[in-house]
Amino acid sequence: MNLSPQQRADIDILRQTSTQTLRPTVPDLEAILYEPLPVLDHGFIRVIDYMGDDAAIVQAARVSYGRGTKKASDDAGLINYLLRHWHSTPFEMCEIKFHVKLPIFVARQWIRHRTANVNEYSARYSIMDKEFYIPEPAHLAAQSSSNRQGRGEVLGGADAAQVLDLLREDSGRTHRNYHWMLNENEDGEAADPSRQGLARELARMNLTLNTYTQWYWKADLHNLMHFLRLRADPHAQYEIRAYADAMLDVLKRWVPITCAAFAEYRLGSVVLSASALAAVKRMLAGERLDEANCGVPKREWRELAAQLGLNTRMLADV
Amino acid sequence: MNLSPQQRADIDILRQTSTQTLRPTVPDLEAILYEPLPVLDHGFIRVIDYMGDDAAIVQAARVSYGRGTKKASDDAGLINYLLRHWHSTPFEMCEIKFHVKLPIFVARQWIRHRTANVNEYSARYSIMDKEFYIPEPAHLAAQSSSNRQGRGEVLGGADAAQVLDLLREDSGRTHRNYHWMLNENEDGEAADPSRQGLARELARMNLTLNTYTQWYWKADLHNLMHFLRLRADPHAQYEIRAYADAMLDVLKRWVPITCAAFAEYRLGSVVLSASALAAVKRMLAGERLDEANCGVPKREWRELAAQLGLNTRMLADV
Amino acid sequence: MNLSPQQRADIDILRQTSTQTLRPTVPDLEAILYEPLPVLDHGFIRVIDYMGDDAAIVQAARVSYGRGTKKASDDAGLINYLLRHWHSTPFEMCEIKFHVKLPIFVARQWIRHRTANVNEYSARYSIMDKEFYIPEPAHLAAQSSSNRQGRGEVLGGADAAQVLDLLREDSGRTHRNYHWMLNENEDGEAADPSRQGLARELARMNLTLNTYTQWYWKADLHNLMHFLRLRADPHAQYEIRAYADAMLDVLKRWVPITCAAFAEYRLGSVVLSASALAAVKRMLAGERLDEANCGVPKREWRELAAQLGLNTRMLADV
Amino acid sequence: MNLSPQQRADIDILRQTSTQTLRPTVPDLEAILYEPLPVLDHGFIRVIDYMGDDAAIVQAARVSYGRGTKKASDDAGLINYLLRHWHSTPFEMCEIKFHVKLPIFVARQWIRHRTANVNEYSARYSIMDKEFYIPEPAHLAAQSSSNRQGRGEVLGGADAAQVLDLLREDSGRTHRNYHWMLNENEDGEAADPSRQGLARELARMNLTLNTYTQWYWKADLHNLMHFLRLRADPHAQYEIRAYADAMLDVLKRWVPITCAAFAEYRLGSVVLSASALAAVKRMLAGERLDEANCGVPKREWRELAAQLGLNTRMLADV
Repeated sequence: MNLSPQQRADIDILRQTSTQTLRPTVPDLEAILYEPLPVLDHGFIRVIDYMGDDAAIVQAARVSYGRGTKKASDDAGLINYLLRHWHSTPFEMCEIKFHVKLPIFVARQWIRHRTANVNEYSARYSIMDKEFYIPEPAHLAAQSSSNRQGRGEVLGGADAAQVLDLLREDSGRTHRNYHWMLNENEDGEAADPSRQGLARELARMNLTLNTYTQWYWKADLHNLMHFLRLRADPHAQYEIRAYADAMLDVLKRWVPITCAAFAEYRLGSVVLSASALAAVKRMLAGERLDEANCGVPKREWRELAAQLGLNTRMLADV
Repeated sequence: MNLSPQQRADIDILRQTSTQTLRPTVPDLEAILYEPLPVLDHGFIRVIDYMGDDAAIVQAARVSYGRGTKKASDDAGLINYLLRHWHSTPFEMCEIKFHVKLPIFVARQWIRHRTANVNEYSARYSIMDKEFYIPEPAHLAAQSSSNRQGRGEVLGGADAAQVLDLLREDSGRTHRNYHWMLNENEDGEAADPSRQGLARELARMNLTLNTYTQWYWKADLHNLMHFLRLRADPHAQYEIRAYADAMLDVLKRWVPITCAAFAEYRLGSVVLSASALAAVKRMLAGERLDEANCGVPKREWRELAAQLGLNTRMLADV
Repeated sequence: MNLSPQQRADIDILRQTSTQTLRPTVPDLEAILYEPLPVLDHGFIRVIDYMGDDAAIVQAARVSYGRGTKKASDDAGLINYLLRHWHSTPFEMCEIKFHVKLPIFVARQWIRHRTANVNEYSARYSIMDKEFYIPEPAHLAAQSSSNRQGRGEVLGGADAAQVLDLLREDSGRTHRNYHWMLNENEDGEAADPSRQGLARELARMNLTLNTYTQWYWKADLHNLMHFLRLRADPHAQYEIRAYADAMLDVLKRWVPITCAAFAEYRLGSVVLSASALAAVKRMLAGERLDEANCGVPKREWRELAAQLGLNTRMLADV
Repeated sequence: MNLSPQQRADIDILRQTSTQTLRPTVPDLEAILYEPLPVLDHGFIRVIDYMGDDAAIVQAARVSYGRGTKKASDDAGLINYLLRHWHSTPFEMCEIKFHVKLPIFVARQWIRHRTANVNEYSARYSIMDKEFYIPEPAHLAAQSSSNRQGRGEVLGGADAAQVLDLLREDSGRTHRNYHWMLNENEDGEAADPSRQGLARELARMNLTLNTYTQWYWKADLHNLMHFLRLRADPHAQYEIRAYADAMLDVLKRWVPITCAAFAEYRLGSVVLSASALAAVKRMLAGERLDEANCGVPKREWRELAAQLGLNTRMLADV
């Protein structure tokens, strides 16, 4: 992640301009406000603004005139209760705004979360920077043979090198041709006065999906947690998970009590289907279950056994 | 609007607790933060928190690293442009949170605006205060005879007095009976130990629709303006318009540039239908139009004539 | 639930008007289309229209040109997979539209589900019918002493009778006074020509919250299931649960495969928090847990023990 | 637009399978149901399903038991009224589902409309077809020199030819390399058994933004019209406008009364700002206005003059 001197200067000015406010303030989050937190090779997330804190959730839940409860322990009790019982509206009363730089193919997954506000850098109006995501060799995974949406083992040396070369060459060439079509120099004038530049809104179609884009993205805490539950999950694609993980760190700074409850009741939780629940009850009553007699579909049984840490002998025949 | 001493004290504490922040701050809005602004006889709106300011809209529109443009005049130009061309996403980057006390029948209109976050005081868990909306005599309008959704002239003295008596008596009696059914004293114990109290979630059904409720309501600036465009409109019911007008004052303090653009391009604007546009063009070309030859449906033509201030002779036969 | 002869005739006409369509059709749902299904004393739900069926979910998940899979068993497998892994978008491709008649206090809970389309009968324009919800004695529950949002045992005979009398009297009187204020006879003329009628939008504030209202309510299948998960739950208030239960029956007719998956993976499922999961693993490994050593908060442990059917000796000291 | 024989056969089966329904049916829309309507060089829209018709809007607006009004003229009157006064909820009661094939850069604009349901063909699971959007020479516009988001005149012959060559070559090469990285033959086996294939979710990043994707897209009529108002507008990019225009034709078949009202009150309407309204009033009163004395910002005045067809002499000095 490289910032231009102008970008760095712009951020520094913001970080030096402090004012008084009567609003709730979170020092741990102020400590990183505006600072880009690196993700992938050229991406970042930056917290641009926030509204509310843990106490604001309590305050909203109680529709109170003041700041909520007196003691932090009471706040934690209520927040745990709300999250455990799926009372989402108090969490919607906190809001956070990010500036994110991310590859277009990640942006396309991300945007599927509709309950957020987004303002993207426009390639109709502006020229896209020459920055592409090139995976680190350690993340260059083969297609999983067992799971159509999964990654298998990491590509070997020569195969990996060839893939990386192709990615670099193709994104480089398409971007050079994009620039040639635009025919604009840095001052916005024709680079080659003898020919016309193609409209920006058309030229962009020549870019590859690993080109970096940027957007402002703003969500309330409830919807942010929903996003993180799905995208910080091991089943999510590594590239978007890298962003989700960085946002989890921000969550911890911003609303530590809620973040702990989120780990307990969402990230670290498991859902037992009706059949899985019946199987667990039978096992707790002393019955010995296996794939054949458990009453749970095969694939789900294997996941369940892994989640419950059933010992290997029990799973021997699985 | 009466605050209890405890409520007043809670607000005072908040107003005395100032901290440093790097976030954008709006002094004119801080000046009234947390303070209840009276609406109707017992209602209020209070600004509880806010995110962003006029510059934050520009910043988001440009997906910028710093604070947007250098000059306020540039900000105004861009904000006007965005609003005029229906670019809504930059305005979604500002957010505001209100605590509102309002009659239930107003709450039922208000909640139809779905793109907001709401946390309402729960009559399943809590006991509703004995406060009802009783209109001022000046707002006690008769049913309009020409317009099914409109108000006609104000009720005369005796009729008005009788209506007000009925409203007061009925809401008073139903609330007394609500309390009797609950059978709870102030300490939450049985007022009459010889009988059981009805569940709160059931007893509430005996309350009338002018009973006051409360909620926290949070919306982004784009959706707030959409709400205000519909509810600060002369066609809106007076009671919800009173809230919208109070929120317009808040808007002016918070984002004065956007508020001016909103007055210019939304509140003070008119929409000409295709037929109305054709009629205006003919009139500008010197033609004399009337209801019969204007090509616009009758009711719309009258509205148009009023909006354009067509002189009375032109409208003589209307 | 009483329909007027005109309403009954209107429905009969619809039920006799059959046309040809190329769209997917669900005979089991057509069998009850337009028919009011009674809920509470005067309420109902009626299916007005629907889009899609089980196969349409598969079709959307595959973005296919034809109708999805060849075999129903394949459809079931995919639908189970989608629901288990929280892939919600294919379920959003089915849509259903209801006409619902319900007490206002239930409508106020219901409307909190924002991801639906609603068109409510307007008391600004129209006059509300004289119909109120009066609970059956069996549902006249006392306030729970242990749970602020819960119901306790049913009120005894004399107490119940008195409550029912009050509910009937108060809703009757407030509605009579509402009518008096309106001063309109059945033809929309002044009942008493010597005085003016109050505007409808004002008079309505005198009605009690058990007055019945009506609306058209339309939702996609994903959001309908989310609604049902929360409102067909034992923690939901009985009155809204009665509507959710009736809608569950409709779900079964409309999309039987999805409905079975919904029972398995949502309604009949349980969520184990991280701590609860750890406790279950210890128990499966042979450890004996109780409230003191389980590592799960007390209230949650009790719920867990009940869900898992832990034997009473294990819970003796709870 | 080319369909494979299998795709064509799948569609034919659907078009031959007619059933009886009690739901409202629209023969003009049934006539094209499931049929791909070509857009751009390889894209299409197909109507997959629909709910409701013009009468259903009236029915919802009246919360009626039957089918709405008796006469079509009454329906038109009410629909015009609703649209003119921004009553959106009755239009939300109709729903339509499309299958759309479109270039990725168009999909990225389209998805910004959040109030719709979308299920996209997944390049994590599946392999993208080798189909790219290559503009017709007539649409190969130069960048506008006066308007950063606009297109200028069409590129001349040699320049155009070179651009088209580059677009074809780059999308062809990146797709060949995508295939090489995947290393899968048509049966899903390794094309070259000596090396591993890159995970699909990674390989896709090498594709260019003019690659075609597909999705199912479902929206209610209100939100569809909002989409069309913005995207069938001359300011919209030609490529997305081509889709909007095709959808307008569908709208006309589906809900002809609403479509006419939409043309009158949205597509063909103009918004006069407060200043523009003041200027029009002065002109109607006989005053002669020009850029200097009109009180309207310069750019807006020019647009207004064009909309009102002010004669060229009046605009001479503009």
